[in-house]
Amino acid sequence: MMEHREYMELALKLAAAARGQTSPNPMVGCVLVKNGEVVGMGAHLRAGEAHAEVQALRMAGTKAKGATAYVTLEPCSHYGRTPPCADALIEHGVQTVVVAMLDPNPLVAGRGVAKLKEAGVNVLTGICEAEAKRLNEVFITFITTGRPFVTVKTAMTLDGKVATYSGSSRWITGEEARREVHRMRHEHDAILVGVNTVLADNPQLTTRLSPGGKNPIRVIVDTTLRIPMDANVLTDGQAPTWIFTTEHADRTKRAQLEEKRIRVFSTGDGPKVDIDCLLATLGEQQVSSLLVEGGSQINSAFLHARAINKVVAYVAPKLVAGQNAPTPFGGLGIEEMADAISLMDVSFEKVGNDMKISGYPVWR
Amino acid sequence: MMEHREYMELALKLAAAARGQTSPNPMVGCVLVKNGEVVGMGAHLRAGEAHAEVQALRMAGTKAKGATAYVTLEPCSHYGRTPPCADALIEHGVQTVVVAMLDPNPLVAGRGVAKLKEAGVNVLTGICEAEAKRLNEVFITFITTGRPFVTVKTAMTLDGKVATYSGSSRWITGEEARREVHRMRHEHDAILVGVNTVLADNPQLTTRLSPGGKNPIRVIVDTTLRIPMDANVLTDGQAPTWIFTTEHADRTKRAQLEEKRIRVFSTGDGPKVDIDCLLATLGEQQVSSLLVEGGSQINSAFLHARAINKVVAYVAPKLVAGQNAPTPFGGLGIEEMADAISLMDVSFEKVGNDMKISGYPVWR
Repeated sequence: MMEHREYMELALKLAAAARGQTSPNPMVGCVLVKNGEVVGMGAHLRAGEAHAEVQALRMAGTKAKGATAYVTLEPCSHYGRTPPCADALIEHGVQTVVVAMLDPNPLVAGRGVAKLKEAGVNVLTGICEAEAKRLNEVFITFITTGRPFVTVKTAMTLDGKVATYSGSSRWITGEEARREVHRMRHEHDAILVGVNTVLADNPQLTTRLSPGGKNPIRVIVDTTLRIPMDANVLTDGQAPTWIFTTEHADRTKRAQLEEKRIRVFSTGDGPKVDIDCLLATLGEQQVSSLLVEGGSQINSAFLHARAINKVVAYVAPKLVAGQNAPTPFGGLGIEEMADAISLMDVSFEKVGNDMKISGYPVWR
Repeated sequence: MMEHREYMELALKLAAAARGQTSPNPMVGCVLVKNGEVVGMGAHLRAGEAHAEVQALRMAGTKAKGATAYVTLEPCSHYGRTPPCADALIEHGVQTVVVAMLDPNPLVAGRGVAKLKEAGVNVLTGICEAEAKRLNEVFITFITTGRPFVTVKTAMTLDGKVATYSGSSRWITGEEARREVHRMRHEHDAILVGVNTVLADNPQLTTRLSPGGKNPIRVIVDTTLRIPMDANVLTDGQAPTWIFTTEHADRTKRAQLEEKRIRVFSTGDGPKVDIDCLLATLGEQQVSSLLVEGGSQINSAFLHARAINKVVAYVAPKLVAGQNAPTPFGGLGIEEMADAISLMDVSFEKVGNDMKISGYPVWR
């Protein structure tokens, strides 16, 4: 027999197995336990498909009666694309429901728990809450702000360079780290770079994983529409490409792009693409997660706009030196070291020969 | 009863306890074992004092007869400041000697082992050899090249900056990392910075540890003797200060410095201080380890001269951005990423909230 936390950790693992495939829904896992035995397990795999509770109840069958359900997210109480899970748990005679976190969605927050309690079900909340919130950080940000969760991914040498002075950047990190980045692409709704990256590298920005992965929407920041009409992202048809520009862009070029079914969004007549407006637009378009793989300029524009939820930095144990070699964040920068943007909940992980450092900026 | 490796690891721990206090001698540890019981332990604590074997033999007394000795370094066979340890082991009737590594000193290499064997002692070598070589990396480098082992220590933000664009750099890392750096100062014979660091920060470059530590010799690289006569390193009397300059320096200034008992070395009439010549001079002066805490310029001069044995880089989880903010290694830099200087035997360690990445450059 295990503790509450152990069963919930199992439910969290079930939920996480569907990472990258549930958007715009959250990842949810459910474990049903009766007399110290696991009698049912489930996870939400894809929007429109069965919720975790329903899958676990199906597996348990009549054993669900009198069981304890461990659910990583408060069971829903409203009719969405599927009937409410709170009702299903009640109907199957589940005796106790252990919930990691309340639903951040204002439509259901607290209502699932209330419905269960009204039906005489014991409810325990807050078990592994921090872990559950971390698991669904993207969903929570999107549902509460209407904007995508922004992850800035960088890769630099041990002396802070993202390229040599001549612009050479292949490769900084090893194979394992590069494979992880493709996995991150698979897990994100959209990926963003600046037009300078398109001009320099002509990247595809697709997910190249074996045995395959989901391609994110490709978002290009291009203030004056300098993107070449034969760029890979415009011609390869691998994934939608959206361009964010300003009123300073050439109207003929814009029309040419739109003829090729490229979506072009203008963020107004400011000197640069407005990051705030860009994120609001992506949110409206149901983009819940954005992976920024920008160069120095794009990254610092996001930093300046305080528009970064998470930083994932790979550090390769090699040196290239160079006073003029670019670094992960350019722009003017912060004046005083004491005013640096600190990261919290920092995690360190060795990936191949490289080090991955991740954390969440604390905006002051 | 333990395995050979376990006893040798204990001997290595004894040796390492004297880190920073044996220069120019190596760190050595010795464990004496008889019938599966430890009967003696010793370590070399300070040049001129008893060797590890002698201390262990003293502890063991008559129990040394028939015992096995684990020694991290081949016992010496020559008369130095103390009598040869090989003789002492033989006299006390030690039956077997297990040696981690042969002495890198050409004066004794292999001779200690030969002497033991001639006297009928069983000798086993190469147990924990890699660990022993790492432990005495400084001594080995010094004894085989006549030059100090050079460690470049850097501290940067997660976006590769050693200061903000305005030059602000206090503090990048947290207290724990800064304390470690003071420990590194204690363990090095000399510390080196460029005159720009003196002009910008007027540092003391002393070891500020509680309950105290050894101050390294302060080495300042100053091509034209721009150092102010009232700089802390010239006036505080905390440790010797040596200045490396060129023939382009003002002779009056040099005389002024020498009057204050500051040693001034010229590396010739090149445009910059010659790093190679500097290291040869330090070696002649019995400096076996040098900690470079340079800025971008000094560090890249050492990189360019291929004069770095080890890099210890602290990475703080914070961002300051800034295209013109300095990075750990400046200069022109390497042109192609594929030609980057890789580090080997890389180790990663969390120090407070910061990450420490250490490794050994592979020069090609």
